[in-house]
Amino acid sequence: MSNNILYTLGELAQLLQLKVSGDSDCKIRGIATLKSAQSGDISFLSNNAYIKQLANCKASAVIVEDKFADSFAGNKLLSANPYLSFAQATHLFDNRPKSSSNIHPSACISDSAQIAKGVSIAANAVIEANVIIGEGSIIGAGCYIGANSRLGSECELYANVTLYHDVHLADHVIVHSNTVIGSDGFGFAFDGEKSLKIIQLGGVRIASHVEVGAGTTIDRGAIEHTVIGVGVKIDNQVQIGHNCIIGEHSIICGCTGLAGSVTIGKYCIIGGGAGAVGHITIADKVKVSAMSLVGKSITEAGMYSSGTGHMKTSDWKRNIVRFRQLDDMAKRLKELEKLGRKIGK
Amino acid sequence: MSNNILYTLGELAQLLQLKVSGDSDCKIRGIATLKSAQSGDISFLSNNAYIKQLANCKASAVIVEDKFADSFAGNKLLSANPYLSFAQATHLFDNRPKSSSNIHPSACISDSAQIAKGVSIAANAVIEANVIIGEGSIIGAGCYIGANSRLGSECELYANVTLYHDVHLADHVIVHSNTVIGSDGFGFAFDGEKSLKIIQLGGVRIASHVEVGAGTTIDRGAIEHTVIGVGVKIDNQVQIGHNCIIGEHSIICGCTGLAGSVTIGKYCIIGGGAGAVGHITIADKVKVSAMSLVGKSITEAGMYSSGTGHMKTSDWKRNIVRFRQLDDMAKRLKELEKLGRKIGK
Amino acid sequence: MSNNILYTLGELAQLLQLKVSGDSDCKIRGIATLKSAQSGDISFLSNNAYIKQLANCKASAVIVEDKFADSFAGNKLLSANPYLSFAQATHLFDNRPKSSSNIHPSACISDSAQIAKGVSIAANAVIEANVIIGEGSIIGAGCYIGANSRLGSECELYANVTLYHDVHLADHVIVHSNTVIGSDGFGFAFDGEKSLKIIQLGGVRIASHVEVGAGTTIDRGAIEHTVIGVGVKIDNQVQIGHNCIIGEHSIICGCTGLAGSVTIGKYCIIGGGAGAVGHITIADKVKVSAMSLVGKSITEAGMYSSGTGHMKTSDWKRNIVRFRQLDDMAKRLKELEKLGRKIGK
Repeated sequence: MSNNILYTLGELAQLLQLKVSGDSDCKIRGIATLKSAQSGDISFLSNNAYIKQLANCKASAVIVEDKFADSFAGNKLLSANPYLSFAQATHLFDNRPKSSSNIHPSACISDSAQIAKGVSIAANAVIEANVIIGEGSIIGAGCYIGANSRLGSECELYANVTLYHDVHLADHVIVHSNTVIGSDGFGFAFDGEKSLKIIQLGGVRIASHVEVGAGTTIDRGAIEHTVIGVGVKIDNQVQIGHNCIIGEHSIICGCTGLAGSVTIGKYCIIGGGAGAVGHITIADKVKVSAMSLVGKSITEAGMYSSGTGHMKTSDWKRNIVRFRQLDDMAKRLKELEKLGRKIGK
Repeated sequence: MSNNILYTLGELAQLLQLKVSGDSDCKIRGIATLKSAQSGDISFLSNNAYIKQLANCKASAVIVEDKFADSFAGNKLLSANPYLSFAQATHLFDNRPKSSSNIHPSACISDSAQIAKGVSIAANAVIEANVIIGEGSIIGAGCYIGANSRLGSECELYANVTLYHDVHLADHVIVHSNTVIGSDGFGFAFDGEKSLKIIQLGGVRIASHVEVGAGTTIDRGAIEHTVIGVGVKIDNQVQIGHNCIIGEHSIICGCTGLAGSVTIGKYCIIGGGAGAVGHITIADKVKVSAMSLVGKSITEAGMYSSGTGHMKTSDWKRNIVRFRQLDDMAKRLKELEKLGRKIGK
Repeated sequence: MSNNILYTLGELAQLLQLKVSGDSDCKIRGIATLKSAQSGDISFLSNNAYIKQLANCKASAVIVEDKFADSFAGNKLLSANPYLSFAQATHLFDNRPKSSSNIHPSACISDSAQIAKGVSIAANAVIEANVIIGEGSIIGAGCYIGANSRLGSECELYANVTLYHDVHLADHVIVHSNTVIGSDGFGFAFDGEKSLKIIQLGGVRIASHVEVGAGTTIDRGAIEHTVIGVGVKIDNQVQIGHNCIIGEHSIICGCTGLAGSVTIGKYCIIGGGAGAVGHITIADKVKVSAMSLVGKSITEAGMYSSGTGHMKTSDWKRNIVRFRQLDDMAKRLKELEKLGRKIGK
């Protein structure tokens, strides 16, 4: 994965603003885990559980906290936050193919679209009327951008992304392949016989520095917009219902589904496969564990869970029978306690 | 969002077949919520929880039930079902870009396909052999329609929809972006060493007035067809396994997964993120709450749930330990009751 | 569904290596279920629950186990494993449209790509630099294959599949529509204020005879690769996080989500809608039931479950109140037992 990228340890130290312990001239060609690192690699210790791997690690250098410096005999970069330093280092070893800043002749672009300079539009992309795309943005092959949508500068849509009309992305927004933004919210009124579609008149507004994973869907609002705040990170296969509002810097892990009009605060972390029912509010700094259902509003920061945890199916079968009897058991327990108190006297 | 659409309140009343209370000449340019409405907007009260918002609502008119008419001082449309009237009104304020009824030169259409008049086919769509598309249908950019598939009249496929071969949609079917219909059912026979694919020989049959959300998948049948009934509404990120049969006017909310050969009755509502194991039947008018797993057939109408509800993770951890002991607790409770009865005598 | 395919029962017997009981000259035109079969169809009994249907089955022949041969009066093929024989038979009645082995003029193929002979590339597919595609592989309409990716021989990508760069598929790999392989793993380091992206430097390695369903996402690795073993079958709407390793011949059912760095053994079956938290290991031959969350490593083969099972919502509401009190109930039960023992003495 080294891709002909090469730094001296001293150069890396300068770029990452870290202190070298050891040979500044040592050559670094790539990043590797402690376990798989070879000569020429830099590795990192971000989880103390792996500290024993330092002893046998073959990396040419390791990013460590000061206090663990003695656990590795070789070259080191000393960091107060090795995981963050590792994240920064990945940008220095970026091995992704670069897209050329031009517009492929097979792209279909409306005459009324405004495409800034330095925009790259790949093969077979379709850009509808009045779309505005800011400087340096990259539109992948086969993407579709509906009428009146806008992208700020330095956005990147990977191949086969679909944006409906009236979807606005601010600057530095990344959207991965086969994700759909602006599809109709799931709104119907029942007339006693059939469901009548509610035309979804709102749009989607996505703030800067948001990243949206692959195969995710974000619905447009019914009347007002669906809103995703600055710095929010959304994983793959997530469903965001119409008129959700996601607060700044929150993280939504894969396969999570939010029903309509869910408001999530800032700096929340919603675990994978979780869900939230419609029209509830989740406070700032709430963590929801994987596959938990949030069935009502959460007003206090903290960690929340639901579910039973996994167990052997044979045990589980016995226990879920009892779960159905739980209210009955509680009442019988109360009866016995009454009897106990009578006897105790 | 007004899009230069303008009605007088009297015109709206006529179109929605409602009675005006107030100034019939008042101009309406858009729909808004009670909270955000400004002059020129019409709003509606569909949920009594919001009745207090009427007092400060700035809308030029509000759709309300007769009995709440006194709660709003301004102009009103009186409706027995304001939510339904609102849904009808959204069609009058439809702000979606219209597709021109023509065939884009970049579309690849088989010579043997039969395209009715008034069909719109957008850029880069691919239509295979023997496909039939009915009058007034709209095929979005980048859509793929496999051989021998058929669409009735007035269908709409948004950008990047994929229909495999032998998928039939009746009239007025809407399919949102990046949805796949007709992919292979997940069928394999284990030969003791590896899984042998079962070629999925059936197709998919979707009745009229069905809407399918974005990023959804509906598998073709193994031998017979997968069948979706008239008026069914399916949300985003739903998975419908091979040979499922969904009854008329049922609603399947987002992220729900149905295993193979699930039969769902008419007028059911399956909540978001729910699941059903294979080869079961769910009766008419069953509601399943969000993220519930239907593990066996349900034979009676009514509402069904599973799960534990969310709680603080610290409390949850203590309780799930006990869940594993539940069968044991139940037996111990029974023992104590025996003792209690002995003593009671 | 017969598609003009016709065999005599004797021919079928030879192709499936089964013994005929009855008329070898009988003509077979298609496969049907016991219930719907008509003259000209062959059917099969793979589940003893359906044995009563044999009496009225109108099929021209049925595949049965020896021991059930007497239950059907007509022609039979005798098989030790009728379900496997049925699976083999579906290949003989394959009715899928065949793609012509050529390259559509609208496909955009990099000059540096190496396309073997007999490869079919459909309309609007985009193949980037240095891609290698092996003999007989089929690339559907609108597919995107990123730079440096490789497909072995006899692979099939259905329409609108997206492979990012550095994704390797071995031979005989099938990928269904709108699936994404190689999207960025969900990796960020929090700097106290915002989430810094970790560039995902690894790729994806998929072994031979893997099938991946529609609308599924498989992320690339952070540093090392995400790895899918030989013969693995992955259903629709599945999410596989970065650096997961799936062992040979395991089966992952629809809507399942695996967080990052989950290692799954060989011959596992992960039920639909299940989930696994990150950095855990699941042993060989583990079965996880539908919608179960695997919250820690499983070291022993066997079947595992979580959840409560569904019940009437009215009952469920009473029981989940008690679930929150479960730890308290357990303690009170213990107190009563103490009292009981005192009295018992």
